[in-house]
Amino acid sequence: MIIEDNIETFNSLLKRRGFIWGPSPEIYGGLAGFYSYGPAGMALKNNILTLFRRELRAFGFGEVECPTIMPEIVWKASGHLERFIDPVLKCEKCDTLVRADKFLQESFPDLMIDGMSYEKMQDLIHNNELKCQKCDTPFGKIEEYNLMLKTEVGAGNIAYLRPETATTTYLLFNRLDQDTRKQYPVKVFQYGKAYRNEISPRQQVLRMRAFDQFELQLFIGKDQEMDFEDYEAIKKVKMPLLDWRLQEQHVDTPKMISSEEALNKKILKKPAYAYCLHLAFYLTKILGYPDEIIRFRQHSPNERAHYADDAWDLEIKTTQFGWVEICGVHDRTDYDLKRHGEFSNQNFEISMGNDPKKKEIPQILEIAFGPDRIIYTLLECAFTVEEAGKENRIVLKLIPELAPNTLAIFPLKKNNAQLTALAKNIYKSMIEARIISFYDEKGAIGKLYRRQDELGTPFCITVDHQSLEDNTVTLRDRDSMQQIRLNVSELSKHVKTKII
Amino acid sequence: MIIEDNIETFNSLLKRRGFIWGPSPEIYGGLAGFYSYGPAGMALKNNILTLFRRELRAFGFGEVECPTIMPEIVWKASGHLERFIDPVLKCEKCDTLVRADKFLQESFPDLMIDGMSYEKMQDLIHNNELKCQKCDTPFGKIEEYNLMLKTEVGAGNIAYLRPETATTTYLLFNRLDQDTRKQYPVKVFQYGKAYRNEISPRQQVLRMRAFDQFELQLFIGKDQEMDFEDYEAIKKVKMPLLDWRLQEQHVDTPKMISSEEALNKKILKKPAYAYCLHLAFYLTKILGYPDEIIRFRQHSPNERAHYADDAWDLEIKTTQFGWVEICGVHDRTDYDLKRHGEFSNQNFEISMGNDPKKKEIPQILEIAFGPDRIIYTLLECAFTVEEAGKENRIVLKLIPELAPNTLAIFPLKKNNAQLTALAKNIYKSMIEARIISFYDEKGAIGKLYRRQDELGTPFCITVDHQSLEDNTVTLRDRDSMQQIRLNVSELSKHVKTKII
Repeated sequence: MIIEDNIETFNSLLKRRGFIWGPSPEIYGGLAGFYSYGPAGMALKNNILTLFRRELRAFGFGEVECPTIMPEIVWKASGHLERFIDPVLKCEKCDTLVRADKFLQESFPDLMIDGMSYEKMQDLIHNNELKCQKCDTPFGKIEEYNLMLKTEVGAGNIAYLRPETATTTYLLFNRLDQDTRKQYPVKVFQYGKAYRNEISPRQQVLRMRAFDQFELQLFIGKDQEMDFEDYEAIKKVKMPLLDWRLQEQHVDTPKMISSEEALNKKILKKPAYAYCLHLAFYLTKILGYPDEIIRFRQHSPNERAHYADDAWDLEIKTTQFGWVEICGVHDRTDYDLKRHGEFSNQNFEISMGNDPKKKEIPQILEIAFGPDRIIYTLLECAFTVEEAGKENRIVLKLIPELAPNTLAIFPLKKNNAQLTALAKNIYKSMIEARIISFYDEKGAIGKLYRRQDELGTPFCITVDHQSLEDNTVTLRDRDSMQQIRLNVSELSKHVKTKII
Repeated sequence: MIIEDNIETFNSLLKRRGFIWGPSPEIYGGLAGFYSYGPAGMALKNNILTLFRRELRAFGFGEVECPTIMPEIVWKASGHLERFIDPVLKCEKCDTLVRADKFLQESFPDLMIDGMSYEKMQDLIHNNELKCQKCDTPFGKIEEYNLMLKTEVGAGNIAYLRPETATTTYLLFNRLDQDTRKQYPVKVFQYGKAYRNEISPRQQVLRMRAFDQFELQLFIGKDQEMDFEDYEAIKKVKMPLLDWRLQEQHVDTPKMISSEEALNKKILKKPAYAYCLHLAFYLTKILGYPDEIIRFRQHSPNERAHYADDAWDLEIKTTQFGWVEICGVHDRTDYDLKRHGEFSNQNFEISMGNDPKKKEIPQILEIAFGPDRIIYTLLECAFTVEEAGKENRIVLKLIPELAPNTLAIFPLKKNNAQLTALAKNIYKSMIEARIISFYDEKGAIGKLYRRQDELGTPFCITVDHQSLEDNTVTLRDRDSMQQIRLNVSELSKHVKTKII
């Protein structure tokens, strides 16, 4: 059977090799918008998180974790109860629910629906007599549908599953101010689940009802935003920027420009915000995405939240879904701390400069990654089908640090007790050397290689008869398929130089 | 101020040093049963999870992650809708809600309420005319209160937040069978959030409404349970077992006996189950708990679930809360797969031995850790107050691998540019060498040391004037407070030999 190089092969690989399964629970037909990670997918996710945590530690960030459920007042203060809503149309006859804006965009591809007022949308529906696609009944009035999942805690306390991690981090502000001994900017991040009751979940793990967030915040003074120590070191680094004015001219290719140039040209306003874009870009690049599929797309003033001073999405170009946002960088101003200060009756004004009398509420700059989207886009761009002998092979060209297995170890024959014993010993010593290893003896050697290629394993070791005599093994490279012979004592050093 | 060696000092440390904050959200008064981890607490948690993942990988376990929300049918099948309930008493006058069994245990300390039927509890209340402690109104009938948090997904689909990770893992059985190519036992684990709407959350992070679970499963054949390959290697290892017959004799000290002896004496029934106890014990021991505060306590036939064939809790002795369960080991038989097979109309019978005609539904053996409880108990047993010079010092004697910071680096004086530059360079090189490091220059050297002692940092480095001349630094040991002088080039090697 010839393996075809197309998106169906890729989608099937995701399930077949234990990356992503769903919608979950599959045996009960699945609930739309919920997915599970299999062993390969989880290993990849853990490797991404480990890399991010290590890097952020080096950048001076602390990690926190807050509850995924918060009482109603939090979401009143954050604005989510009032504003975290989608406009929907509900068919009066057959109960079909559709998102009004998406429905209108599909009906009028040439109009710009994003940012349009509900009144205008209502007019469009009315004037064009738009109807339910299932039963042909004319649609009535646009209704508001809150995207938060609601629950009740204890006996009768209304609470909501958080629609983002960010708000829960803001609430720790007092604690973080004390914990960092007022060393601003306070740098913090939180990883965890968030929930959105999407009306029509779609695009696999790209728009789920339960998903991961990895959100970083800088709590920072207004002066510090303009005079930011760490900016100097990064101001010359070029980034692929597509500002909103370019988009208005229907350009969709970004320009490679430095933070310094972008500030001079007033594409960016604040050095500290430029630093956040750089940090998002840096964290994306170390995951191994090729340059040409990364861009920063600026939100137009219409598109961004009313309190936001600037917003850029970091997008990855995919085959299956076009440009996909994997990260958003937001200048949230002092909106959040002001609101939570008001609603909780706390005074969040602090003195940040040298003058103790001059007090201010810190600004928040935010970098919000979606790990599920990172996983999907990384897998799609690592996916390769190439000729190998008589038939094609699938190879996942993930960077070695991210591969679910760094090393796989096989005995050449499984029925030879000496070979399997030696192979298992090598496996144990590799695990002890902290190399993520996998032992496999089930199948012919060619099949074992293919299986690891499909998982993206950078190195495979085979233990053969010569190994019993001179303690050497063959080490096969995933991409070149070249094999070299190495002494077992050199193995861990050889592999480690390739992954760190 | 003299630091007192008592539990108040410990509880205050947890907040003051950023381990655990709550109930969250604190600025809004807090919702009972919800807590946040500060930077030190999260670092500790990540270190525990990293250690567990590394070890489990070596034991051949794969990791999965499933949604935290599942539709109603899942919880019908699992039995949670019907059985995951607490008996409660609601005061008809003042609406106070109390857990009937807890209330009765407090009212009758000499009776054994655990396992008592609702009818008998009702009789006790009636015959003794028990009243609401708030308003003195006699209590009426015991009601059932389901502990799951309910929500609605999409428009009108009833779903529940999972009360455990385990059920969501069972639902992947088909997928895992294929992913592991039928190599039984299939070994899998899942880490994530679970939710229980406790009536009265208490004991800080020990009984929360949202908490972490880290649950391992073995899917295994009935014959394999009795003839288990990995058992041979561990059968001589002694474990602290307190079986239920000993408990009936009011013994509360465990006996150190091996799996082999326990099987011979019929304290345990199955070698594979003994292996699970051993694995739970092993994972607990590597976290650094001293032997004398660990015990396995067997559930009495009354205490355990109706389908369970055996159940033991791994408990840690604490100062504040007595013996605390951090892990449960459960022989769940084929109950779960049978139920889910019936409710989903799937056939979970597979052939596991050499005879393809002989088919069976796999058994499930389970090891369920509560990471929040690990964190609490580890911190409590690491907490030490000892004399140091004129005043006492607090030291967290965590094992080096688990400490939030492995290494802290200080310049002797913060206003000396040469010293701070060298100290920052060393910090960077340590981070690059994958040593979890923290740089601090804010405060006198004595204060910086104390702060790290309170965080459990095993090593502190100070960069002084001699460092500028000969590239050496002082390295201070947390426990002995001894300082040695080391060349910077030897640092990473020296630290790494102490932590791996």
